[in-house]
Amino acid sequence: MPSIPQTIIRSQVTQALAEDIGSGDLTAALIPENKQSTAHLICRDNAILCGQDWFTEVFQQLNQQIQIKWHYSDGESIAEDQCVCTLTGNSRDILTGERTAMNFLQTLSGTATVTASYVKHLEKSNIKLLDTRKTIPGLREAQKYAVRCGGGYNHRHGLFDGILIKENHIMAAGSIQKAVQNARNNSPHTLKIEVEIETLEELQQALTAQADIMLLDNMSNDMLKQAVEINNQQAKLEVSGDITHKRLKDLAQLGIDYISTGAITKHLTATDFSLRFES
Amino acid sequence: MPSIPQTIIRSQVTQALAEDIGSGDLTAALIPENKQSTAHLICRDNAILCGQDWFTEVFQQLNQQIQIKWHYSDGESIAEDQCVCTLTGNSRDILTGERTAMNFLQTLSGTATVTASYVKHLEKSNIKLLDTRKTIPGLREAQKYAVRCGGGYNHRHGLFDGILIKENHIMAAGSIQKAVQNARNNSPHTLKIEVEIETLEELQQALTAQADIMLLDNMSNDMLKQAVEINNQQAKLEVSGDITHKRLKDLAQLGIDYISTGAITKHLTATDFSLRFES
Amino acid sequence: MPSIPQTIIRSQVTQALAEDIGSGDLTAALIPENKQSTAHLICRDNAILCGQDWFTEVFQQLNQQIQIKWHYSDGESIAEDQCVCTLTGNSRDILTGERTAMNFLQTLSGTATVTASYVKHLEKSNIKLLDTRKTIPGLREAQKYAVRCGGGYNHRHGLFDGILIKENHIMAAGSIQKAVQNARNNSPHTLKIEVEIETLEELQQALTAQADIMLLDNMSNDMLKQAVEINNQQAKLEVSGDITHKRLKDLAQLGIDYISTGAITKHLTATDFSLRFES
Amino acid sequence: MPSIPQTIIRSQVTQALAEDIGSGDLTAALIPENKQSTAHLICRDNAILCGQDWFTEVFQQLNQQIQIKWHYSDGESIAEDQCVCTLTGNSRDILTGERTAMNFLQTLSGTATVTASYVKHLEKSNIKLLDTRKTIPGLREAQKYAVRCGGGYNHRHGLFDGILIKENHIMAAGSIQKAVQNARNNSPHTLKIEVEIETLEELQQALTAQADIMLLDNMSNDMLKQAVEINNQQAKLEVSGDITHKRLKDLAQLGIDYISTGAITKHLTATDFSLRFES
Amino acid sequence: MPSIPQTIIRSQVTQALAEDIGSGDLTAALIPENKQSTAHLICRDNAILCGQDWFTEVFQQLNQQIQIKWHYSDGESIAEDQCVCTLTGNSRDILTGERTAMNFLQTLSGTATVTASYVKHLEKSNIKLLDTRKTIPGLREAQKYAVRCGGGYNHRHGLFDGILIKENHIMAAGSIQKAVQNARNNSPHTLKIEVEIETLEELQQALTAQADIMLLDNMSNDMLKQAVEINNQQAKLEVSGDITHKRLKDLAQLGIDYISTGAITKHLTATDFSLRFES
Amino acid sequence: MPSIPQTIIRSQVTQALAEDIGSGDLTAALIPENKQSTAHLICRDNAILCGQDWFTEVFQQLNQQIQIKWHYSDGESIAEDQCVCTLTGNSRDILTGERTAMNFLQTLSGTATVTASYVKHLEKSNIKLLDTRKTIPGLREAQKYAVRCGGGYNHRHGLFDGILIKENHIMAAGSIQKAVQNARNNSPHTLKIEVEIETLEELQQALTAQADIMLLDNMSNDMLKQAVEINNQQAKLEVSGDITHKRLKDLAQLGIDYISTGAITKHLTATDFSLRFES
Repeated sequence: MPSIPQTIIRSQVTQALAEDIGSGDLTAALIPENKQSTAHLICRDNAILCGQDWFTEVFQQLNQQIQIKWHYSDGESIAEDQCVCTLTGNSRDILTGERTAMNFLQTLSGTATVTASYVKHLEKSNIKLLDTRKTIPGLREAQKYAVRCGGGYNHRHGLFDGILIKENHIMAAGSIQKAVQNARNNSPHTLKIEVEIETLEELQQALTAQADIMLLDNMSNDMLKQAVEINNQQAKLEVSGDITHKRLKDLAQLGIDYISTGAITKHLTATDFSLRFES
Repeated sequence: MPSIPQTIIRSQVTQALAEDIGSGDLTAALIPENKQSTAHLICRDNAILCGQDWFTEVFQQLNQQIQIKWHYSDGESIAEDQCVCTLTGNSRDILTGERTAMNFLQTLSGTATVTASYVKHLEKSNIKLLDTRKTIPGLREAQKYAVRCGGGYNHRHGLFDGILIKENHIMAAGSIQKAVQNARNNSPHTLKIEVEIETLEELQQALTAQADIMLLDNMSNDMLKQAVEINNQQAKLEVSGDITHKRLKDLAQLGIDYISTGAITKHLTATDFSLRFES
Repeated sequence: MPSIPQTIIRSQVTQALAEDIGSGDLTAALIPENKQSTAHLICRDNAILCGQDWFTEVFQQLNQQIQIKWHYSDGESIAEDQCVCTLTGNSRDILTGERTAMNFLQTLSGTATVTASYVKHLEKSNIKLLDTRKTIPGLREAQKYAVRCGGGYNHRHGLFDGILIKENHIMAAGSIQKAVQNARNNSPHTLKIEVEIETLEELQQALTAQADIMLLDNMSNDMLKQAVEINNQQAKLEVSGDITHKRLKDLAQLGIDYISTGAITKHLTATDFSLRFES
Repeated sequence: MPSIPQTIIRSQVTQALAEDIGSGDLTAALIPENKQSTAHLICRDNAILCGQDWFTEVFQQLNQQIQIKWHYSDGESIAEDQCVCTLTGNSRDILTGERTAMNFLQTLSGTATVTASYVKHLEKSNIKLLDTRKTIPGLREAQKYAVRCGGGYNHRHGLFDGILIKENHIMAAGSIQKAVQNARNNSPHTLKIEVEIETLEELQQALTAQADIMLLDNMSNDMLKQAVEINNQQAKLEVSGDITHKRLKDLAQLGIDYISTGAITKHLTATDFSLRFES
Repeated sequence: MPSIPQTIIRSQVTQALAEDIGSGDLTAALIPENKQSTAHLICRDNAILCGQDWFTEVFQQLNQQIQIKWHYSDGESIAEDQCVCTLTGNSRDILTGERTAMNFLQTLSGTATVTASYVKHLEKSNIKLLDTRKTIPGLREAQKYAVRCGGGYNHRHGLFDGILIKENHIMAAGSIQKAVQNARNNSPHTLKIEVEIETLEELQQALTAQADIMLLDNMSNDMLKQAVEINNQQAKLEVSGDITHKRLKDLAQLGIDYISTGAITKHLTATDFSLRFES
Repeated sequence: MPSIPQTIIRSQVTQALAEDIGSGDLTAALIPENKQSTAHLICRDNAILCGQDWFTEVFQQLNQQIQIKWHYSDGESIAEDQCVCTLTGNSRDILTGERTAMNFLQTLSGTATVTASYVKHLEKSNIKLLDTRKTIPGLREAQKYAVRCGGGYNHRHGLFDGILIKENHIMAAGSIQKAVQNARNNSPHTLKIEVEIETLEELQQALTAQADIMLLDNMSNDMLKQAVEINNQQAKLEVSGDITHKRLKDLAQLGIDYISTGAITKHLTATDFSLRFES
């Protein structure tokens, strides 16, 4: 599971440490400067781990002597109350970094864990669960990585690496046909063209325009069935809107290719971790 | 409701735009360069609004000509399906900024709204609901502002503006007495001294040490009642651990001063907004 | 012709001004503080204009009162010795910014102009001329914009927005078949899969693997003809390697889709501009 | 040959990597995470090497375990098809950094090589070849270093470390005499005063004003001969304008001190390198 | 004596090196590239040492091979002409960093030394000497650390970690009573409330309002005596205004708690250091 | 009096505001959001004003509506208790910026004022008073500007814009002769060569080597007289070491060209300003 570029991680950690430490950790001064500690990170939930590189980077930036021994890898499932890793090193620096390191881990593991809970319903199908651009500001790439750790797949990362033609673009171009053609002429040839579709008529038009991917938005299961028939394997079909755990079972039967949902990245249920110091 | 320093907002928006736009908005090229639009931001949930300054800053950075007319202010309650604001200006730039602007608004309004749902249970008491340092990395100050918009209060912002003596600090100092004394001698005299308390015996020791605030962590309601009696108005009492909506009613009766919970900032239920363009 | 995100331009101009002005323009002190001037920017070559936003930004950062009236737009052809724009404002600031502003314009117009000279040979065909990642460090997006101004098209902008499977990737995956499959499974579904092809046998394998685009590298015209036949409209064909003005005419006849060349961005023939002050 | 401050190199490399890698190298995921490779960098042209520190820094920032063994040093002449250096380390990281590292090397070696081709014509004289401020935006110091590697010398680095009085400064001051005096009174006393001269009359005035260096701009060889006589060893003479390979031979005989030309830094002929992996 | 967060030190050193080295150390080129030296840092004054981390960081950023052996620690008293530390390593890099490293040391030791000279007069009392926000721009945290090294204590670090109600705040709130109440309701509960007091009447009002700390500004010794009586141990008393060495003796007798003065950080008497190279 | 590049000022102000405001001005919340005030800046000392651009920039960054009307310009002499400028605008923002703005003004005016006190002793001579590189870290360019405001002149700004050959450079090169020659061959030809001289013998050697400027360091007045004779107008003479107000009168008679002293920038006597609000 390749993580994201280290420079992004480095800069996010620097900022998070700055907002927590600011002009200095006032309480840390109570700990003798050279005291050493061993501490165990315990996961209090059943969860998918995500965020090791951020956790490690926090302590790297504070004190390169702190050692971390990991017992799980990103993407692995952890049972409640298991020990995730063990830290050894300067007590003061471990305490100063503790909250920032855990904030990354609880946020990203939370996203991976909820993603996995959706993916589970699609296991027997070939459908891929996709994320969206509805992410927490500043954490786009980190959350997209967490989605991958949870077994999901990434839709485009931003406006720069994918074409998604929506209602406003179609109206401005005059028709789906013209919008698709226009996009194909002006975008890097390495990109497919995706069109947001709200009616079966629009689907027909987009097929005529030879769009590569259809984003079927807010359609009922019945309507989706018709769409699958009309499409007849011509384009890839992505479904979005009202994606609940309950509905996933039904969607898994429909012959679509992708399901995308903002819920896995815009909502957040932090995983519960705690750090226990050896006495 | 004073917002947070503009430089923090500016830099967060710049980063969020960069991660979404990157090398450029490929689909925006389908919109004619000088097309003008009017669009209405609709709130799809009952919510407390939070994040106007970030929303505005997104469009400021993209195109200073875009006008935004707000119908609500941060901290105000919005009923489902109301129009929050109206944007007028260059269509391409409104579309390019739409997702980033809404990501800030949905995240921060989500935090404000959940905070308000906790605060509601404390309305008839004098107890203040406090946040913690369990926040989403990079959004510490923004979330603390959202907590204020939701009717909550801020605990210390980071390690730099408050003393909170925990188990490790006490063990290192030798006793609660020594830890409190040590902290009082070395911290800015403008700060109170808070001690995390897990037993009634510790409470007694901390009172003897004249700590200003007691953080009563993970105590049962019964134990809290005893603590209130022992304290006898000497120190301020803050309660944390297992803070649920259900338990708040009981806690409201106990004569404590503050309740703090990480749940309002580490979990997140994004508020649902959508942007409707006038045709 | 949409330009690149303004934040990129802003930051490039800030850096370029810093490296030229440093601790201050020592000679500018000879010009009276409030002197006003009018100056005309003359293009000394036949060229395609590119870089207006950078040129303008230089003076914006130095003095927002300086007015620039443009007589041409980016992408337009300028004949030798024509006046490109007229500046009016504080003499000292115009002199301080002159060299930095012209360095951007001469570099980017140079790239646009050489691109146009290649594109000219393909005018009667449907072949698109593409750039590569062989660019001047720090100017990737700026040069890609210059290529568009010159009538060329952009290949992927970086490693993040396109899949290009090369020899090393194939060896690591075991076969073209496996590499393509692997890439399709793990990349955003909005991206096409391109494979670098050196033999007709590899072409056959890549067609079997249903790769979307074939990068035919360093093939003779004869070999390319065979490739076109074998391909039989299945995949898009891109040709690279040894792309000279002379050879373009022949390539234009072959039925391929794209020609890509590093020469238009890695070499540079700066366009000659001069700034003439009205006396 | 002292290189430029490491902080400048570090920041240029960080930016160049960011514009190439962005949200991540999509194709690199095809390479197994722990695969090791050895690769040889081959120079395809006769060239002067320049840019080792940038090349090295690229891989340092990606993976500090990658080893580079250099067979040549910056400023040395390399014959076509020689191996410049050998890299050993993680395959994926070598592939991710390959293009960015080579873009620096091909750009800077290109500048060093073209500089050396000019310098060659001046070998038997004492004339120094100087660069100008006509550089590629963002690469001023890097190119000035490349000029030194090619045997050239640096004119002032920017507006901050040299006084060059041009036509506009003279007009504003009223006369060459006044401009020189004014400059001498107000600039750091460690700087010489240089004046741009277009006529022999101006030369006479600048000599009277005791300017230290005369920049003889766009003069014919005959006019230059007269200038040398008039100057009679009083000031240093620098010649600029229409500096071609062909004309250098003649200029070398004239008794001038410096020749400056923008051509060596504003135009660019990238040196051709390729990276060959051991199979 | 815990120093300040390393990221602040790192960034201050990077900036200071940039403003001194800029495009490169021109004179350093006279030193052979691989020459090694040993140099001794001598303190020319009786002083309190402060600034080791900055001094060390300067050479770390230039050349990680340079070794520094310290003979004193921050906060220790050094007699005139003692050797503070010994550097061993690359001569050129030691020379390049010398001035920047010493500028930090002379500035911060200067602040520590003057602080110690004030603190000396308070040794027999329990009064703490406090700094203020009257600091040198950019060096707030560094100077606050120097104050601690000199035996002083820190008042609030900025506007973010302390409440100090001044005349304008009182006027805006309507009364001291209302201002204190308002502040108590809206600030983090971990902060005490301090009020600036100019008359004994105001003191009485602030006591009624239960402010925690009284800043008695510009009062005569007699008036201070009355204030101490009126206060009668209720609030903490801080005295500011016209704090001279001479007056400190008298103030030490008055029963106040803190004395704060801007003089120790806004004025500066640099400590004299010199670096002697072994020949 | 041209100030320093605006980007340097902007960045210094941003940093200074950040270190003072951090997560927000807690006390400012006591002031009603829309309250307007008028405030007068009073200078409490006889001083030379310096720092207007920084003062203005502080309020620009906080609130662009705040108006400042200046009654003096940088470099002008202000008598005690005069009003320097008047601010009108939002009360809360004026209070938030007050300390940061005044910290710049008191620091830079302090440097300008002490410079003027030295310059006064040289008024009847042609000797220029020069600063050095002994400056407060982060404020090099700002202090050099303050020196100019006080009537002094700038020595080199850093290691990048001047050659100063010291003892270590001479030892490394082998002799003064070789060091000067080496420097002349390798530095930009726009720079003069200065040599630090400690004995008359060294002066003789440096004259033979045709160094442009002699830095006569730590010589007695008698020795300086001999140096002036030996020099006999060949090189420029700069004197440093033990420069006191008292000695300046004698030095003014000696026929030297420049006097340089670190005292004007390494020590600091802040000018006293206060801000009075209209009630």
